[in-house]
Amino acid sequence: MSPVIDLNADLGEGFGRWRLTEDEQLLTVVTSANIACGFHAGDAATMRRVCEQAVEHGVRIGAQVSYRDLAGFGRRAMDVPADELAAEVAYQIGALEVFARAAGAGVSYVKPHGALYNRVVHDEEQAGAVVDGVLLAGALPVLGLPGSRFLEIAGKAGLPVVAEAFADRAYTDEGTLVPRTREGSVIADPTAVAERSLRLAARGEVTSLDGRLIAVRARSLCLHGDTPGAVELAREIRLRLERTGVEVAAFA
Amino acid sequence: MSPVIDLNADLGEGFGRWRLTEDEQLLTVVTSANIACGFHAGDAATMRRVCEQAVEHGVRIGAQVSYRDLAGFGRRAMDVPADELAAEVAYQIGALEVFARAAGAGVSYVKPHGALYNRVVHDEEQAGAVVDGVLLAGALPVLGLPGSRFLEIAGKAGLPVVAEAFADRAYTDEGTLVPRTREGSVIADPTAVAERSLRLAARGEVTSLDGRLIAVRARSLCLHGDTPGAVELAREIRLRLERTGVEVAAFA
Amino acid sequence: MSPVIDLNADLGEGFGRWRLTEDEQLLTVVTSANIACGFHAGDAATMRRVCEQAVEHGVRIGAQVSYRDLAGFGRRAMDVPADELAAEVAYQIGALEVFARAAGAGVSYVKPHGALYNRVVHDEEQAGAVVDGVLLAGALPVLGLPGSRFLEIAGKAGLPVVAEAFADRAYTDEGTLVPRTREGSVIADPTAVAERSLRLAARGEVTSLDGRLIAVRARSLCLHGDTPGAVELAREIRLRLERTGVEVAAFA
Amino acid sequence: MSPVIDLNADLGEGFGRWRLTEDEQLLTVVTSANIACGFHAGDAATMRRVCEQAVEHGVRIGAQVSYRDLAGFGRRAMDVPADELAAEVAYQIGALEVFARAAGAGVSYVKPHGALYNRVVHDEEQAGAVVDGVLLAGALPVLGLPGSRFLEIAGKAGLPVVAEAFADRAYTDEGTLVPRTREGSVIADPTAVAERSLRLAARGEVTSLDGRLIAVRARSLCLHGDTPGAVELAREIRLRLERTGVEVAAFA
Repeated sequence: MSPVIDLNADLGEGFGRWRLTEDEQLLTVVTSANIACGFHAGDAATMRRVCEQAVEHGVRIGAQVSYRDLAGFGRRAMDVPADELAAEVAYQIGALEVFARAAGAGVSYVKPHGALYNRVVHDEEQAGAVVDGVLLAGALPVLGLPGSRFLEIAGKAGLPVVAEAFADRAYTDEGTLVPRTREGSVIADPTAVAERSLRLAARGEVTSLDGRLIAVRARSLCLHGDTPGAVELAREIRLRLERTGVEVAAFA
Repeated sequence: MSPVIDLNADLGEGFGRWRLTEDEQLLTVVTSANIACGFHAGDAATMRRVCEQAVEHGVRIGAQVSYRDLAGFGRRAMDVPADELAAEVAYQIGALEVFARAAGAGVSYVKPHGALYNRVVHDEEQAGAVVDGVLLAGALPVLGLPGSRFLEIAGKAGLPVVAEAFADRAYTDEGTLVPRTREGSVIADPTAVAERSLRLAARGEVTSLDGRLIAVRARSLCLHGDTPGAVELAREIRLRLERTGVEVAAFA
Repeated sequence: MSPVIDLNADLGEGFGRWRLTEDEQLLTVVTSANIACGFHAGDAATMRRVCEQAVEHGVRIGAQVSYRDLAGFGRRAMDVPADELAAEVAYQIGALEVFARAAGAGVSYVKPHGALYNRVVHDEEQAGAVVDGVLLAGALPVLGLPGSRFLEIAGKAGLPVVAEAFADRAYTDEGTLVPRTREGSVIADPTAVAERSLRLAARGEVTSLDGRLIAVRARSLCLHGDTPGAVELAREIRLRLERTGVEVAAFA
Repeated sequence: MSPVIDLNADLGEGFGRWRLTEDEQLLTVVTSANIACGFHAGDAATMRRVCEQAVEHGVRIGAQVSYRDLAGFGRRAMDVPADELAAEVAYQIGALEVFARAAGAGVSYVKPHGALYNRVVHDEEQAGAVVDGVLLAGALPVLGLPGSRFLEIAGKAGLPVVAEAFADRAYTDEGTLVPRTREGSVIADPTAVAERSLRLAARGEVTSLDGRLIAVRARSLCLHGDTPGAVELAREIRLRLERTGVEVAAFA
């Protein structure tokens, strides 16, 4: 049986006059679109448009939920009380659902964004709050970091959990991400990123920052769409995966 | 057959630390709750709480959609392009729907708030945009001013339309509301408001500012919840209606 | 020489349609007004009005700077990078300065609000950022917790530092505030609060939660204005202070 | 005596993660920078940086004041009451002043942005409110459309008024701008724009959409910085102006 991998990317991350990601082009490459829901980015008209385009391209729609922080693009951790956070997560999913449904689909999964993504790796209270928010909106699959408190709590709550890997981020020997503040945490070389993508998808392994081969089991690969050349790199990765016999398919 | 009337009021109009309406008390009186959806008021946690309380009291949940204007409480008319406005209306309905559904109900109707309410009385483009937004979210009933472009366009689009009357606002001989800027436009005397409520509900008529008896057919009466003594007045109106044989019941 | 104390309170904490504090009444009692600058509360028109009223009552105008968080009223700690935080602090001071100046005065001091106030007690990076922000705006006095990193760093940077005490908060034996999460952290009894105010102002001492007499040297007492009966309590405290021979006077 | 012209452009129109204008490059060309103050664009850190860069390049700092509308980039007209609008204008100027002052300069003038710019051409109430806001902040020069109510009211109030022209916009025979909704309202051809710039600066005249030569007296030319090739075109215009003997110099 051939290995199968999903490709996900953040989309619709503009706001009003501002644009960030080349949504339409990325939608020709990825299988799952993490769509901003208005709290870190993503106005209503953009959400509608990206949902329609996603459905046209047969791409799954995911709600990328965030702290309420447009000024910080959701990248600043916030001590939001659990009940507020749960409600805010549900609010964002509900808002996106209208556009997903109007486009003939639905919200297929939920993925936390930015600082919230990082926080729920370890923070039990906020991880639980995000899970509560998802449960309020419906028993949707969640996408996150393998080994995170978030996926653990979501799994216990009965939500389908999907682990993802990052081909352009360095890993520690323990299989966690090397913090962005450390030298070598981000892999910029396109060829290296493509190689790592193949390895992760086909064999579930990656070379750590210290040179050891470690196992990272992930059903999805996260591609970054907001760097120069991002679309070309994404396309190249997908091509190589398919040529090597890896099936590229959504998880939901 | 006894006349039947719905009582609606704006609820959940706080934001974060701020409160405006005595939500829980008003929910013991009204049959339809126009719940703020975050654009002029209404944070996610408040929306959740008010939805739960509404369901407990058997009150219908309506989405009170607004311009995006927290600083102005949605009371400042805005020239929002039609496609943005439609998407923003749908966004708000979707966000509320999550909480309505989680509370065991659903969004039963949509009512524009403040400056948007007034604008769509005459503005064809914005009226059409609000209708488009409602259609994106689902074919929900709309609540508005009788004779407005909004109800007209909504009706043509196949949406159930519900007309409302205001017992504490003066009417012109033509049956439209006297602008707030004119002397005598708002009726402050509780006894007069109660009398007018009875007349409107039981006989579909009201005395105009110039003293003529005019017809105002409305299936719902809008009560104001943000003035001192509002809850007591609302309770008094409901009592009198019921004593006079008017059935108080939601329209949706 | 008689002891002298300043009385400060948070003012102008409404936003648009919402009100929180009885600004005009509190201005008849306090000597320093911590005015919200738009980030946790405080729209421009409110800022203008409160500045004018403060000048009428001879009350000093202080900039109460906050995280950018209207939805959380500035009560949720945020990991804001130092350069952003410094700029945001300066932005708020500058905005207030226009209204203070137009009213015939100026911004006399700066006090962090809510979660930022608590964070800079210990967080060196954010404390430094707030000080940088104040320096950008001008070498203004800062008001804060005695022993905090904030006052320490501000002092080293050459800013005049002013320590404040809380008559309605319990203190540990070490002279720090008992966290709000602990039983007994807030003193609700007006008589006790008035007594403690006198002791703090006249003798610089307070009884700790564990019953020991400890020293708390403060040039200002912080009064809370957003609780029921706040204005009456504030008035009572000021009266007692003056009767006991404590001079009530601004520090700036 | 050689003719003299100022070149102004909108700068600092990013927000948080988003960027719009190539600020640093435009600052090598223009003599006056209209800096966004946080209401339609422009976070505090960006305002600080652009002020510093403007001073480095000897460029004057202007406050580009707007409706409070990040989602609409200030391009949607709003019915803001006069007292709120005046206070919001003053708020924005004050915020910018901190950064201008810290950079060793000051705010040299005020220019309304987007929908507010267009509204105050005809709307007396809002034009007066903007003038009131400027007066609150100090008697600063204002930059606007010749013949507008705004410049007229500002002049009567004693503010220095500066008229500007647009080389890339079509004019009517009456010397007003052809609305963007009309065919031919925007001139895209760089050569034509450069030619018109020269004519406007050197001779105070321009060819109307209907082919007539009309007089447009302006002390400043507005260059657009948010279109592809904008920087190159701006540079080209400046070069040609200088080669033709037009002195390029700030008005304030």
